[in-house]
Amino acid sequence: MRVYEIAQLVDGELYGDGNHEICNVADLGNASSSELTFAEGERALQQAAASQAGCILIPEGVSLRGHTVIRVKHPKLAFIAAANALHPSKLAAPGIHPTAVLSPTASVPASASIGPHVTIEDHATIGERCILAAGVFIGVGVEIGPDCMLYPGVRVYPGAQIGSRVTLHAGVVIGGDGFGYVFAEGRHHKFPQLGKVIIEDDVEIGCNTTVDRGSLGTTFIGSGTKIDNLVQIAHNVRIGRHSIIAAQTGISGSTAIGDCVVIGGQVGIGDHVRIEDGAVIGSQAGILPGKVIRKGNVLWGTPARPLSEFKKLYAYFSHLPDLAQKVKELSRKISEG
Amino acid sequence: MRVYEIAQLVDGELYGDGNHEICNVADLGNASSSELTFAEGERALQQAAASQAGCILIPEGVSLRGHTVIRVKHPKLAFIAAANALHPSKLAAPGIHPTAVLSPTASVPASASIGPHVTIEDHATIGERCILAAGVFIGVGVEIGPDCMLYPGVRVYPGAQIGSRVTLHAGVVIGGDGFGYVFAEGRHHKFPQLGKVIIEDDVEIGCNTTVDRGSLGTTFIGSGTKIDNLVQIAHNVRIGRHSIIAAQTGISGSTAIGDCVVIGGQVGIGDHVRIEDGAVIGSQAGILPGKVIRKGNVLWGTPARPLSEFKKLYAYFSHLPDLAQKVKELSRKISEG
Amino acid sequence: MRVYEIAQLVDGELYGDGNHEICNVADLGNASSSELTFAEGERALQQAAASQAGCILIPEGVSLRGHTVIRVKHPKLAFIAAANALHPSKLAAPGIHPTAVLSPTASVPASASIGPHVTIEDHATIGERCILAAGVFIGVGVEIGPDCMLYPGVRVYPGAQIGSRVTLHAGVVIGGDGFGYVFAEGRHHKFPQLGKVIIEDDVEIGCNTTVDRGSLGTTFIGSGTKIDNLVQIAHNVRIGRHSIIAAQTGISGSTAIGDCVVIGGQVGIGDHVRIEDGAVIGSQAGILPGKVIRKGNVLWGTPARPLSEFKKLYAYFSHLPDLAQKVKELSRKISEG
Repeated sequence: MRVYEIAQLVDGELYGDGNHEICNVADLGNASSSELTFAEGERALQQAAASQAGCILIPEGVSLRGHTVIRVKHPKLAFIAAANALHPSKLAAPGIHPTAVLSPTASVPASASIGPHVTIEDHATIGERCILAAGVFIGVGVEIGPDCMLYPGVRVYPGAQIGSRVTLHAGVVIGGDGFGYVFAEGRHHKFPQLGKVIIEDDVEIGCNTTVDRGSLGTTFIGSGTKIDNLVQIAHNVRIGRHSIIAAQTGISGSTAIGDCVVIGGQVGIGDHVRIEDGAVIGSQAGILPGKVIRKGNVLWGTPARPLSEFKKLYAYFSHLPDLAQKVKELSRKISEG
Repeated sequence: MRVYEIAQLVDGELYGDGNHEICNVADLGNASSSELTFAEGERALQQAAASQAGCILIPEGVSLRGHTVIRVKHPKLAFIAAANALHPSKLAAPGIHPTAVLSPTASVPASASIGPHVTIEDHATIGERCILAAGVFIGVGVEIGPDCMLYPGVRVYPGAQIGSRVTLHAGVVIGGDGFGYVFAEGRHHKFPQLGKVIIEDDVEIGCNTTVDRGSLGTTFIGSGTKIDNLVQIAHNVRIGRHSIIAAQTGISGSTAIGDCVVIGGQVGIGDHVRIEDGAVIGSQAGILPGKVIRKGNVLWGTPARPLSEFKKLYAYFSHLPDLAQKVKELSRKISEG
Repeated sequence: MRVYEIAQLVDGELYGDGNHEICNVADLGNASSSELTFAEGERALQQAAASQAGCILIPEGVSLRGHTVIRVKHPKLAFIAAANALHPSKLAAPGIHPTAVLSPTASVPASASIGPHVTIEDHATIGERCILAAGVFIGVGVEIGPDCMLYPGVRVYPGAQIGSRVTLHAGVVIGGDGFGYVFAEGRHHKFPQLGKVIIEDDVEIGCNTTVDRGSLGTTFIGSGTKIDNLVQIAHNVRIGRHSIIAAQTGISGSTAIGDCVVIGGQVGIGDHVRIEDGAVIGSQAGILPGKVIRKGNVLWGTPARPLSEFKKLYAYFSHLPDLAQKVKELSRKISEG
């Protein structure tokens, strides 16, 4: 793409050589003369002055002498748009690989791409233009909307419902049995795990993450929510829209998470917790069962507290030796009279 | 099923319309007139008064006017029995899918169901009525007892021994190499990982959980133990009977866990730990290598302590600012004379 | 093998019956008269006196009457060498299983062993004597060096580069998309994940571990580094040579880890952290984003501190009730005058 084409695409103001050719994107430190990059924030803009990049996306109102730049409202967002234009996702050729095993009652459109060693069971429905890569398993009655990407080795248990433009990375398991038992007569009796999983549009789920089905109800993941690798979502969990869950976090049964919540990595959330819209939970925090986290609150620690409170307590904790020393001195003074 | 049939099945006392037809189970809040539910505990029984359920399982000695009910000793257990009767697990049709690859020396009974793209290596033995779903891998010499369910993509390394009625969920790996190295001559030398894995009867293991083989000895999981998703069980770990291990917990090498132990989620247990029967470890706790946790003890925190002690310390921790303030005042009083 | 052959192999000094036959290895407590074991350290050597082992590897300068022993510089290392000689890894027969699906543009040498249901996409290159077990997926353009072992169900996304003698255990995913989004216009826009993964020689990665590709740059794992099960390595992470990472640890984006670093289990490391050579991070520790851990430092806790400092603070924490009691007494003394 020529620089002027990128400027048009991102609706930006071009300064410099509009005919210069760009064939790739790169980060600010590594971009070469045929590459596009972006700079946001004071430090990045300073670094940008020395960049070799063929073109730099910068914020409105900023100038960068001696460089071909495009001024845009939101450089990082413009960079994403340009990267997508320069690297359109390769569409797998439509068709069904001869090694795939499809039930005659499954519905698979001609526009879908079904890879080697895929299994699709009875009454499953695959949306238009879906890509099911090698070794994917789709259970009985699963419904998948259009334009989904299922990477190699994704397993979807029977009955799950998946929306449009959903991305499931390699090794993801959707719809496994919830973990619920009743101990009686000297052994664990398995509670029925008959519920389902609903995943709405534009959800992305990272490698080897597991999402259990509801026991009697439904496990639900709202539109636009993004989940990282190796996360555990238990039965009957309900997650709202546009939330973010980082790697290795675990969410216990029947917990409800609102919209636009941000949860760090390795967080542990007990059962029947309610996390309201916009809350932020710091990495490795632990939230006790049944807790309610209010709208927009920021928490950290185990058991989790408001971040400011945690920081304050932690500062006192760090000064414990001083406090103990002070008490010792007071004690001496008093006994000395 | 008619209500009177359910009453017979659970050996309960029926009050109301025995001929009413029930076709499903549901939780108390959502059960409709064709569904069975249960109510246990004061709060649930209050909620039950307004339930639309076609039939409610309630404890002996309780009455619930205007509802068709069955009185039983243990409503939740009776509910499980009724749910199993209403939703018998669908048995996959026996037979070997033509895409499965079986060694001629593997032993697979006619009653087993072997799905698409399954691989069974030399000298492996599969029990009667086992179901190996799509993409399962069974290594050389593996022995699996009758009535096991292996969900899609389960991988069992060579030599593992699995009992009867074991359930392994999608993505489970049994028998991977333990993590042991000797650092010498500037690099890590791998310690031999030649041991095996024994999994006894009625064990259930959740999605993407990993159980390593013994290095020289055996990794052992006793009858009736239930393990959640994404758990790590290291080499030479020994787990007793009827224990419960929640999601994302990790158990290091050579640790021994007794019977009926309950371990929360994201717990980390060091190597050579001994956890005696009936102990309970709270979520996210960390147990140092070599520790012994006595019978029935309840622990929490990192490093883990008896729960009551942890709670007490934590309360003091929470009041650190007050304590510091008090010391400041004392100090002022003393210096003021 | 005869004992004298083992002595030759490990370059040790033989005492006892050189013609005695050894057919297996075992740990000190379980070794029988046809088995080899080793003893290092005072306690093990005491235990060795009562061992039934057919031969014991012991340190130089030690004697053990009444036993056939081989004295060596490093008994555990010698034990590894002997175990490898007694149990040579079974080489899968070279060849391509008829159910494997290989692109005509993939390069697969005759010496490689390609198992059932494997998929190898366009322009991928497999090294000499590699073993790709059942169900492995190799994406477009992946390069794998000689003598690698990929266990069942390993998935390698397009473009990854893997060195020589690399072992990837079952369920490992290499090259998944990094977790990066820009929130704007009410939704998350995915940041480009166009980078690659480079894994150097002699790396071993445990079951179900995930290694993301770089977003614009490269995720890099240096020679000889060993990674346990269920670990998460995010985009653009750089790990040096001969480092050790235990199970369920998570490393966030753009973090750099040096050579010979040891990281315990369930550690969480924020983004843009730098951990210098030889540092040791205790299990379950949490390292805040952007931190620098100096060469050889040993850390523990969340947020992580030098171990000695953590231990000291933790001791004060444990004595908080005493401190509070002391303050109460002082307060009483002062108010009493």
